[in-house]
Amino acid sequence: MSKYWSDLVHRLTPYVPGEQPKLSRLIKLNTNENPYPPSPAVIEALQLELGDGLRLYPDPNSDRLKGAIAGLFGLDSSQVFVGNGSDEVLAHAFQALLKHDRPILFPDITYSFYPVYCGLYDIDYRTVPLDEDMAIRVGDYRAPNGGIVLPNPNAPTGRLLGLDAIGQLLAAHPDSVVAIDEAYIDFGGESAVALIDRHPNLLVIQTLSKSRSLAGLRVGYALAQPHLIEALERVKGSFNSYPLDRLAAAGATAALQDRAYFEQTRNKVMDTREWLREALEQRGFQVIPSAANFLFARHPRHDAAELARFLRDRHIVVRHFRLPRIEQYLRITVGRDDECRALVDALDQL
Amino acid sequence: MSKYWSDLVHRLTPYVPGEQPKLSRLIKLNTNENPYPPSPAVIEALQLELGDGLRLYPDPNSDRLKGAIAGLFGLDSSQVFVGNGSDEVLAHAFQALLKHDRPILFPDITYSFYPVYCGLYDIDYRTVPLDEDMAIRVGDYRAPNGGIVLPNPNAPTGRLLGLDAIGQLLAAHPDSVVAIDEAYIDFGGESAVALIDRHPNLLVIQTLSKSRSLAGLRVGYALAQPHLIEALERVKGSFNSYPLDRLAAAGATAALQDRAYFEQTRNKVMDTREWLREALEQRGFQVIPSAANFLFARHPRHDAAELARFLRDRHIVVRHFRLPRIEQYLRITVGRDDECRALVDALDQL
Repeated sequence: MSKYWSDLVHRLTPYVPGEQPKLSRLIKLNTNENPYPPSPAVIEALQLELGDGLRLYPDPNSDRLKGAIAGLFGLDSSQVFVGNGSDEVLAHAFQALLKHDRPILFPDITYSFYPVYCGLYDIDYRTVPLDEDMAIRVGDYRAPNGGIVLPNPNAPTGRLLGLDAIGQLLAAHPDSVVAIDEAYIDFGGESAVALIDRHPNLLVIQTLSKSRSLAGLRVGYALAQPHLIEALERVKGSFNSYPLDRLAAAGATAALQDRAYFEQTRNKVMDTREWLREALEQRGFQVIPSAANFLFARHPRHDAAELARFLRDRHIVVRHFRLPRIEQYLRITVGRDDECRALVDALDQL
Repeated sequence: MSKYWSDLVHRLTPYVPGEQPKLSRLIKLNTNENPYPPSPAVIEALQLELGDGLRLYPDPNSDRLKGAIAGLFGLDSSQVFVGNGSDEVLAHAFQALLKHDRPILFPDITYSFYPVYCGLYDIDYRTVPLDEDMAIRVGDYRAPNGGIVLPNPNAPTGRLLGLDAIGQLLAAHPDSVVAIDEAYIDFGGESAVALIDRHPNLLVIQTLSKSRSLAGLRVGYALAQPHLIEALERVKGSFNSYPLDRLAAAGATAALQDRAYFEQTRNKVMDTREWLREALEQRGFQVIPSAANFLFARHPRHDAAELARFLRDRHIVVRHFRLPRIEQYLRITVGRDDECRALVDALDQL
């Protein structure tokens, strides 16, 4: 507390990211990182940037990266916005497109940064409960609203909505921006990008942190019709001219261009996820169907906090949220085969 | 314009950064980049980070970098905030520490991003005119205010305020945060960091973009007593958990640790600046005394816009601001000796 703080600062409750333990030799299944390294093409592209050029500002518009993203999705560059991780892209979207007179809507169980952004930008919100199967029912989003935001697949449940449901939501709220946060879409879902042409109110947000193995590089992007992108550009241009450094832009471009590596690693993650799901179910866990690179699971006879502690003592870190409705669940990132095997072996010692 | 935009977006006038021309072979004296490459230690540190680790999130608190900065200035890490370039640090400072009921004050001729931040966060401001010598007179900052922000040396004039004047300003406004933006301090000024212990209202902001030759890496920081740093951390933690990627943090740490290279390159820039100042004065230019890595100059017989165009035709880019009071000035970045020589040779063809 300090008299120098703005009123806002007194009210803020910042987001708490998953632990980034500084110990090595931990099996880290707590922050949904990809267990496989980035494409070798990324490392090559970064090598080429390590030199005198670092003394110069980056391209403030990241045109080359935008071109690569546009090419990947068959869009025009005017339909692409890039930022310093999808968290920054989301922040700008809340300020530029989700702040109106009416409250915005998002699920009661979802990415816990959403209410934090609302606090930062003084946006009113209402949460809409997941159903008893922890699924989003788009028919429950009926209230007049200033916007809707939801992850697909949802986090931390991993449950996927089909494009039909998303299309219904878009059609039911033509005057609101519907932001679909697709951080995990590449692990089994179908992107809503296909709906952009038909829906002027659709904003799709993706990241290179998960399926492209680049959490350490901080690159995210949004896709939409140009009038929504322009709103994000205006806020970005009033906040930070150069959010993407030269290395991040170069590495991200190379990652998006190496489609073979992307297919190979995401398929491996999906295969391991199915193996792990079966192994957990065989051990009595209830596992929510996941289209993400994590599983959300509970055990009817073991307290989740105790389970998390038990695993931690065995150098395995998973994520436990002390939040209503999900305090008996663990979110377990899908690691390499040997990491998931070690998790299962540890559980067998229970 | 779009019905989906928040009210704010309709009102925004984004900052316009200096051109980043995509042509090579230009002599680029328009965005105050350092003409010398980053320290070889930076490249080595970056090499070490190019690998599997990029799949993992960075340390959200950038502890190692904060430690390096704290060590450099004899501060504690709790007195250090880091961000994605000093523009992001400034943005957070405006929202966290400069938004109060009263208007904030800054010079009429100064970094043109300040009014843009005010627009983004709905902060009222008053400008205080520079005197007839284009100098800041701290005695002119008398109005009751919600904060004061100024660059030292000022941009785009290059003029330096001494620590006595800054101390007077801090003492005269004990209830306001006084933010000193020291982007250019290493080219001949004395940092206000020395005043932090005595003044709970002082926020010092620096960048690695200029004196550390790392504009391409996007790293800035703020230094202050812990209660001011905490306000910045709260906003940052509500906006983006990981603003510094792994490469930026590693490169910045190495740059700050190589003091010998820093001394050598900043001395070279200062030597070249003095040579260029004399050369310009010999050709009839009026040059404002500069403690930065640029000169702000006008010629009594040549229109500044025409001069800029004349130079551009000769592949030399300088910055010209079409703004009241300074429309007859050019801001010329101090380049390498050969670049400054080429500029002077071009002027001799006038």
